[in-house]
Amino acid sequence: MAKEVSNREENYSLWYNNLVIKADLAENSAVRGCMVIKPYGYAIWEKIQAQLDKMFKETGHVNAYFPLFIPKSFLSKEAEHVEGFAKECAVVTHHRLMANPNGPGLVVDPDAKLEEELVVRPTSETIIWSTYKNWIKSYRDLPILINQWANVVRWEMRTRLFLRTTEFLWQEGHTAHATREEAIEETERMIQVYAKFAREYMSMPVIVGKKSESERFAGALDTLCIEAMMQDGKALQAGTSHFLGQNFAKAFDVQFANKEGGLDYVWATSWGVSTRLMGALVMAHSDNNGLVLPPKLAPIQVVMVPIFKIEEEHEKILAKMAEIKSKLAEICITSKIDDRDNLRSGFKFAEWELKGVPVRIAIGPRDLANGTVELARRDTLTKEFVPQEGLESHIEKLLEDIQANIYKKALDFRETNTIKVNDYETFRKKIEEGGFLLCHWDGTAETEEKIKNETKATIRCIPLENVEPEEGFCVYSGKPSKQRVIFARAY
Amino acid sequence: MAKEVSNREENYSLWYNNLVIKADLAENSAVRGCMVIKPYGYAIWEKIQAQLDKMFKETGHVNAYFPLFIPKSFLSKEAEHVEGFAKECAVVTHHRLMANPNGPGLVVDPDAKLEEELVVRPTSETIIWSTYKNWIKSYRDLPILINQWANVVRWEMRTRLFLRTTEFLWQEGHTAHATREEAIEETERMIQVYAKFAREYMSMPVIVGKKSESERFAGALDTLCIEAMMQDGKALQAGTSHFLGQNFAKAFDVQFANKEGGLDYVWATSWGVSTRLMGALVMAHSDNNGLVLPPKLAPIQVVMVPIFKIEEEHEKILAKMAEIKSKLAEICITSKIDDRDNLRSGFKFAEWELKGVPVRIAIGPRDLANGTVELARRDTLTKEFVPQEGLESHIEKLLEDIQANIYKKALDFRETNTIKVNDYETFRKKIEEGGFLLCHWDGTAETEEKIKNETKATIRCIPLENVEPEEGFCVYSGKPSKQRVIFARAY
Repeated sequence: MAKEVSNREENYSLWYNNLVIKADLAENSAVRGCMVIKPYGYAIWEKIQAQLDKMFKETGHVNAYFPLFIPKSFLSKEAEHVEGFAKECAVVTHHRLMANPNGPGLVVDPDAKLEEELVVRPTSETIIWSTYKNWIKSYRDLPILINQWANVVRWEMRTRLFLRTTEFLWQEGHTAHATREEAIEETERMIQVYAKFAREYMSMPVIVGKKSESERFAGALDTLCIEAMMQDGKALQAGTSHFLGQNFAKAFDVQFANKEGGLDYVWATSWGVSTRLMGALVMAHSDNNGLVLPPKLAPIQVVMVPIFKIEEEHEKILAKMAEIKSKLAEICITSKIDDRDNLRSGFKFAEWELKGVPVRIAIGPRDLANGTVELARRDTLTKEFVPQEGLESHIEKLLEDIQANIYKKALDFRETNTIKVNDYETFRKKIEEGGFLLCHWDGTAETEEKIKNETKATIRCIPLENVEPEEGFCVYSGKPSKQRVIFARAY
Repeated sequence: MAKEVSNREENYSLWYNNLVIKADLAENSAVRGCMVIKPYGYAIWEKIQAQLDKMFKETGHVNAYFPLFIPKSFLSKEAEHVEGFAKECAVVTHHRLMANPNGPGLVVDPDAKLEEELVVRPTSETIIWSTYKNWIKSYRDLPILINQWANVVRWEMRTRLFLRTTEFLWQEGHTAHATREEAIEETERMIQVYAKFAREYMSMPVIVGKKSESERFAGALDTLCIEAMMQDGKALQAGTSHFLGQNFAKAFDVQFANKEGGLDYVWATSWGVSTRLMGALVMAHSDNNGLVLPPKLAPIQVVMVPIFKIEEEHEKILAKMAEIKSKLAEICITSKIDDRDNLRSGFKFAEWELKGVPVRIAIGPRDLANGTVELARRDTLTKEFVPQEGLESHIEKLLEDIQANIYKKALDFRETNTIKVNDYETFRKKIEEGGFLLCHWDGTAETEEKIKNETKATIRCIPLENVEPEEGFCVYSGKPSKQRVIFARAY
């Protein structure tokens, strides 16, 4: 087969890049660091979007749209925020091109220089809070619960398809509240929405935790996150929810008349996930045959391949498949009949495995005679013969099994590769093998940075779930600690 | 009421701007020419998107995503295309800001100058055809039927909310075909999809036609369009579908091996509608009380306002409303109970009229006793008392009536304001009154330009539907002509 995927165990990074390209998810574009999301990859992203959008609306949020451009001066208004983003942003300086007076092609028209440069949004806190200023006068205008689906640009020096690209697609929630408590509650609510989505839809176990100070979002008082383990033992931050305190309200002077008649600064949160989730999805489950997609996010859940020698058989098989397809559609299962006449069935099998379709049905003349079909599941690569009678409910159940099995497999992997480490010598050895190291930490940024410089491991999070309080001593400094945190190398 | 809309008959343009802002659809942002689409406006856009997306998929298209940035050199590759867009594009020249060494704030880092400037896409033909080059080798790779939902930027000098903004949201279809005939068929199919959407969902009558050469898309061999008449008699181009011939395939050297084994350049189309449709929707139907939304695109189709004096009545009315709401939800009608305690019902009535909610239900104690509700329809501003028994199916029927009535009203208006004109003196007089003038035209760009300069009227289209062939003489030059075309002033 032409589209062979390279070996995951030999070179994980190469395997990932190959897979993203060969499964037709995305490719690099002519513009440095920007990707083209191909139809098959975009169809998965559409499923991710649709489900998240539903969950946002169920928790009371509405969508809106704010400008792509941010005036340069806005970035400077929040001190930490500008530190975080000014060094990696695309800057628009002119609004016109003109014919090159000294040769062919186009040049920037020097007469079309902007008075103030515009930055292509790396995130929208500043433009949104400059807008909220006009929307918020009284406590009656609060809360504001807005989400935006948008593209953003961060000028990354080293890029990788989906995981780190100059332009990426994401959603960013930006909420405004009358009280600190309400904003904290929102921050927590949304990280739980992300965790639920990752677990139930992506079949990806995640740990909900809090970032250490040095890993926080630029401008946040607290950053909550979901962290997942990839199949090479590295961590991937899959979503974040920030408690912004009153930082942006103060930067843009957004005050409201409270119930008591006084003036208060508004409390803020922001939260986002991006096309990075596509990278997580690939890395969490796929194998050397290609993608393994959880049924709930698979654009095609069932593929059917006819096996035949003569045209008469072909027609009968197609008729049976059309019947199955329409019964599956009735219970909202999406299927595709692969009737391409120029490809052998072996080639088709390999291609749909590469594309991660959860269930494959093959029907040949003998199956027709026996009233059966051959059913193959992508996650385990096992096959069984199943009666055509009751096939649809069998498949419905099978898809649920696959969804659960993929999750369990990833969870088992994470648990196997999570260990408690109590001394730095073991830490240095174990971190080379990948996985999550549960360690005591003295709570200082200095220790964190030294460990990072010496081992490339960072604190992924201070876990908030399933944690037993446990006293101990920092794995690096030996100073006292009250809880273990998760160290790992990360994407 | 605070949110009074200004008078449509006195100043149409002011009325429009006021309405967009007061109905909470959109507002100007801190960035010149860029708008903020507010939640209520965005909810309408989401309905537009969802329906169009469904229609695109039903006609075989899939979505994908291409980069926001276009290398400067790509623009120059198609000669007419560069003419059309180079003069109005946002140019990214640097990828980093730095602290101002001579004072406060940020400046562009001169060391971070890009080797080649990037243009923020004004439309994506060039970046997409540079990508298609790698995707298309053989006739088996064709057709490619891709759509993209995206933001685009055109540096307009004079902007108006929704109608003409520097950044706007749109969809752009870009298809690739093996034959000229197939590409022309696609161009025609998509303009019909737009026409159907405008008529059936926006309740907006449109004329399908072809643009004259000087009004074509930059790089197209033919541009089909749908043209609508606004309530001031001006025309608005609501959607376009372009037959691009082999222009972009030649510019980006995209050839394919045909069935006969030869090499051919690929045939192309592109087609798009944008947030401009929001402006059309407002201008086509609204009145001095506010928006009039066609039920199929209204985020809230039915609003319910309780009328009461004492708390006991209030509770009973709310219980009844909750019952109605859930019955409406069963037949997919979206409703809202406006139970805000700080506003009088008169204020609420005016607010929901302003927001164009198609049907309003009011229930007071007497209605409870009588088993009735008061039903008000937004389009005619008429009221009736209706039994609670069977209310839901009554409303279902009423929403259909409103959808049809809005369309009919707009169609009647257009027909009343469309006249045949045979001499230039009458033309000059009638064009001042607004409306569509059906005139013979000699087919030359010179005549078209003279008429435009003298009267500000342009050829909106050469109509393709309901046209009787009719010989005649050009309204300007007196030269022979075979068909009337539509002249109008336009947005």
